[in-house]
Formats: sequence, structure tokens, C-alpha cells
Amino acid sequence: MAKPKCLLVLYKGHEHAKQESRLVGCLENELGLQPNSTVDKELEEAEIVITTPFFPAYITRERIAKAKNLKICITAGVGSDHVDLNAANERKITVVEVTGSNVVSVAEHVVMTMLVLVRNFVPAHEQAVKGGWDIAGVAKDTYDLEDKVVATVGCGRIGYRVLERLVPFNPKKLLYYDYQDLPKQAVDKINQVSKIYNDNDDIIERVEDLKTMLSKADVVTINCPLHESSRGLFNKELISHMKDGAWLVNTARGAICVDKDVAEAVNSGKLKGYGGDVWPVQPAPDDAPWRSFQNPFSKGGNAMTPHVSGTSLDAQTRYAKGVENILKSFFEKTNDYRPEDIIVINGDYSTKAYGRNPKFWSKIRIV
Amino acid sequence: MAKPKCLLVLYKGHEHAKQESRLVGCLENELGLQPNSTVDKELEEAEIVITTPFFPAYITRERIAKAKNLKICITAGVGSDHVDLNAANERKITVVEVTGSNVVSVAEHVVMTMLVLVRNFVPAHEQAVKGGWDIAGVAKDTYDLEDKVVATVGCGRIGYRVLERLVPFNPKKLLYYDYQDLPKQAVDKINQVSKIYNDNDDIIERVEDLKTMLSKADVVTINCPLHESSRGLFNKELISHMKDGAWLVNTARGAICVDKDVAEAVNSGKLKGYGGDVWPVQPAPDDAPWRSFQNPFSKGGNAMTPHVSGTSLDAQTRYAKGVENILKSFFEKTNDYRPEDIIVINGDYSTKAYGRNPKFWSKIRIV
Repeated sequence: MAKPKCLLVLYKGHEHAKQESRLVGCLENELGLQPNSTVDKELEEAEIVITTPFFPAYITRERIAKAKNLKICITAGVGSDHVDLNAANERKITVVEVTGSNVVSVAEHVVMTMLVLVRNFVPAHEQAVKGGWDIAGVAKDTYDLEDKVVATVGCGRIGYRVLERLVPFNPKKLLYYDYQDLPKQAVDKINQVSKIYNDNDDIIERVEDLKTMLSKADVVTINCPLHESSRGLFNKELISHMKDGAWLVNTARGAICVDKDVAEAVNSGKLKGYGGDVWPVQPAPDDAPWRSFQNPFSKGGNAMTPHVSGTSLDAQTRYAKGVENILKSFFEKTNDYRPEDIIVINGDYSTKAYGRNPKFWSKIRIV
Repeated sequence: MAKPKCLLVLYKGHEHAKQESRLVGCLENELGLQPNSTVDKELEEAEIVITTPFFPAYITRERIAKAKNLKICITAGVGSDHVDLNAANERKITVVEVTGSNVVSVAEHVVMTMLVLVRNFVPAHEQAVKGGWDIAGVAKDTYDLEDKVVATVGCGRIGYRVLERLVPFNPKKLLYYDYQDLPKQAVDKINQVSKIYNDNDDIIERVEDLKTMLSKADVVTINCPLHESSRGLFNKELISHMKDGAWLVNTARGAICVDKDVAEAVNSGKLKGYGGDVWPVQPAPDDAPWRSFQNPFSKGGNAMTPHVSGTSLDAQTRYAKGVENILKSFFEKTNDYRPEDIIVINGDYSTKAYGRNPKFWSKIRIV
């Protein structure tokens, strides 16, 4: 058997790649796979494509048509919306990702971003570094997360982990919006911890109407996949239903928000702040509206980061190991992938609780 | 009865005081007390002194000698080390604070600072705002809080709340160093939640030797009072016992750390980062070493803020209410202060689990 061609598409590590060998998500360190031959740059000959979601290779219908040998697309991380899944199905190309490799990292990033926004960290830190001592200038827009209503749009692996982490902060209420109820066990778990910590065994609640939920929430976090129903969801109209002075956090996909509308909402003071780790176009251009928005009262309210939440060194170790396992199954022809990693296989979508399947998400109610 | 003179010492609110009426901790908004007469500026005539810990009026032995009418010192917040307690006892001056008014706020600030450091937020955010897209430059020093060993020096009201909030992050171990064991119920509570979330019912552990604890911890947080035994505790020698690449968070008192030694530890790369909300001298001078230190690898590792963690608007509401209650007890001569608020009364120290009593803290073991 001829050696199969494998195309590995990663982000550039520059000098950082040499400095930190655990930075396996970059081109130079190649997920620690250390291939013996130069990676074939020609997708046309490749049997396997491996890419991260941070700098994805877009596997379009046209590219699939040209890639005669392509059998499997592997996402080193989570989120395979860069592959045309219908075209992959027609060719019976398998699409797999390393489910779960980033969920903890992203959930941590979400909680961090909420705290950074609610506690007004950025202006405080800027003052500490630049000089001066104007406590009132920071304190006038600093709050506690305690006793706030926090709502998640989407309550899958990441959204649920965010709620788990929020319980000890003693929120007023945890709300979620999703196409189905959380399993009873998951609800019980959160209420049980809330009872132990806060003597409140009724902390979590599903809200069936998105606008109703947004009108009640002090902090909103977006944790749903990008899909036709969620693209451009947070536009000026929907944001107008949010509480005045709410905070919005988005680590899902940039295109779920209309960038100019979100920037305008913070610039006008409608929202106290926005923190996102994902951008509509990546890499984001230097004049992207999300680089420069600012709340006029706090002179803060911007907690943007480039797309790094899911690529901590701990997450990189997990997704490199996951890719290794997937490759092993592929090369040994066992194809015994972890069921939760499979997006499409044998010409069809895999059923996934995660909701990657567009059929599920078409049920999302925007009323 | 002549109207007693009350001296209120707060920080200046400048234009922010007009912009936000809930900013009661500043001079202009006077804790919402709205006195009918101009506050007497002369401590010599005052019966009552009210001050915040952020810009404290230092009530020294000399000042107490001159303040012939002084009967009560009220701290609008927590931390009364600005009062000479022995001198107060000799004159039977009561010293009270609003215990608990800041504990949630500070615990939230601690968790935020840990996440900001471990997840390398500051360099990420700077890149997002300034332009560019160098994911590797951020990711090479970004970690998850999950599976890290976190240790607190001092496990009173704040330290314990920090540990409570960390359980859902699934740490490897939670360690604490204090002069006594936590109550069994407090340990059980944390282990019970850890069991529910992480299937680990043995997450928390007291370590009797400080250096041993520091040698095991990835993240260290300081939550003990400033006292003769804790002043300058984190110097070059003690820091040398910390793990290479650990993170240090201090929201207790700046003088617990030797500022130059901490700055040098980050500048040299011994520590990945330091995040503090308290400074040895407040207001901190513009050339204070904590304004400018930076980890040479990540170009980050500085999560300093001016002293704002305990003065969120939510905390201000609590401590203004607390001061009101204390004043009511004083004026009505019931003197039925909340026992936990009392630092000294009737010429003696009040016993406090919080450990404000120096007799407790002299037992702290620095070996």
C-alpha cells in the first residue's frame, strides 16, 4: 500500500514554536506527530486533512471535487463548520473532531470574561499599569457577579459547564435557552450544589422564548453552534430586548453577532460591555469594529481576545492526543472513532447531542 | 445632649461621584448618610470616626491622645489595621467594621485574577485592541485552571469563599495554610460539591508547613490579615520555595509581600505572574515596581489593579447599610453591634474567628 498523503493545516507559531514545545497546535510543532516526510501541500493528493478551527482550511464543495483521494477530514479541536458537510457526505468522506478537547478551556474563558466585564477589570488594570490612583473612576462601574441573572444561549457541553462554574458565585438565577430540556440529572446536579452552597434548590430554569430570557438577564453568554438559524442572531433588534446595562459574552462563533451592532450597543452605553474570543472574520483585520469599541461611562467594557480560548496548552495536549487516536483508527482501518467525535460518516450525519447536526438547530425558536 | 461630632474620611469621587449615585464610598456621596451639617474636620472634637480601608485615616496613638471625645471608630468596609488597637483599648474606644461586606467581592476578584493570569488574558486582550493576530504568541503561555493545585495562605471568610468557587473548575487539589483546622462542616461542604461535580470527595487539605505547601502549588492566593507575622512574608527567600512558573495572587494587604522581590520574581521568569489589588503604599506612586513588572516569556503576567476589589457598587451598598446600623446602635446607646463586626470593645479584643486578633496570628508558623 502506498503511504497516504496527509495535509496538516495549522497556524504559524513563529519564534514562539521554538520557545514552547507544548505549543503543538502550530505549523512548526505539527501536533507532536513528527511526520517522517514533508507534508504534502497538495490537497488534490491528500487522503487525510487535519486542521485546527483557529486557522481552518476551508474544505469547500469545489475543493472536495478536486481532492480525489480524500477520505477523512480531522479537526484538531472542536467545530467543523469549515467543511462542506453535504459535499463530504456525497463522497462518503468522514469528518471527525476531538469533541470535549476544548470544552473546559472555553467554559473557563467564559467565566473569566464575565468576571472581567462585571468587575470592570480592564480600566482598573490600565490605571495600575499607566499610573494614577482614581478608585472612584473604576468603582463607579464595578459590580459583583453575585445576585445577577446569568443566561446562556445554548446549553450543550460548554454552556452547561459555564453554569456549573457559576453556582458558587450565588447568582440570582441561571437561565438557559436551547431546543430541548437539559437531562433531569444535569438539572438536579446544579440545584443540588446550589442547595449546598446557597440554600437554593431551584436556581436553574429553561426559558422557551429567547427575547423573554434576554429581557431578564444581567449577563448573557452565547454557547450555541454557528448555523443558519444563529447567524447574525444578535443584531440591533435582538440586542434591544436585552436589559439596559447588560453584559454579553460570546466564545461560540463571531458571526452569531452582527459586529457593528454589538460595537454600537457598547459605544452607545446600551450594553455595559462585550467580551468575545471569536470574530466574524479570522484573522480579524486591524480596523475590525470589535477592536476599538468602548463604553462611554466606564471607559471599559471591551474584553475581546483573539481566538485563543480553546487553544490553551492543556487543550492542545488533549486535541493532539485525540488526533493521534483518530489517525490510529484510520490507519489500522478499525474506524472505531469515539461516537461523539464523528460529525459525518458513511454518507450521513451522526446524531450528536451537541447539536452539530443542523436538523436539530433548525428547531431553534427566534420569535 | 449636644449633637456628637462625626468625622467621615472617604476617597475623592471627582466627577464620577455625580455620574453614579451608588458610588457611596466617596467623599461626595458620604455613604448615603446625608448629614445635615458640615462634617467636622477636626478629629479633636469628633466622637465618631468613619473611614474606608481604601483611603484610611490612620488613627495613631498620638491622634487618639488628642481626640478627647472619640468613642467609636467605624471602618466602612473590612480591615481596621489603620487604628492603633492597643491605644484604643486603653481609652475604651470601640472599633467596629462591616464584616462580610467585602468578602464576596474580594473572593470574586481573586478567582478573576487567577483566571486572568493562568489564561494569559492581558497579552491576549492587548493584541485584540492594538491589532495583529498572533495566536501562538498568546497560546504558548496559556493554561487551564483545571487540574492545577491551588493553595491559600489564610482560610478565613475570603480564603474559604475562594476555595468554594474553585471546586467546579476541577482542581487537582485545594490546599490551605492557617493556624487552625477549618470546621469539619466547611471541609465536608467542599468535598461534597467536589464529589458531585468531579467525583472526588477528598479535594481539600490543610498543610501545616508553609514552604511545603508553596512547593506543591501552581497557584497561590494570599488571604490572611497583615500582622507582624505576615509583614514581608513573601520575600525572595520564601518565593524561592514556590514552584517555578507558579502564579501568585494577593488581595489581602500589599505589605505581606516585598514588592521588589515579587517584581523581580516575575521579571526573571521565576513566577509566571502576580496579580494584586493591594499595594504596600496607597495610593501607589507612579514608579511603584508593581506597575511595570512583566514576565519575559509571555510579555504578560501582570494582573495588578488599584485597591478596588472590595468596593464594587454591590459592596458599597452593603457597607453603607452596615455603617448605618452601627451608627443606629451607637446613637440609641444599645451598643448591640453584630458580634462579628467588633474588633475591640470595652478595653479588650473581641474573639474573632476571622483572626483579626493578633494573638491568633502570632501562632502562624514560618519555618
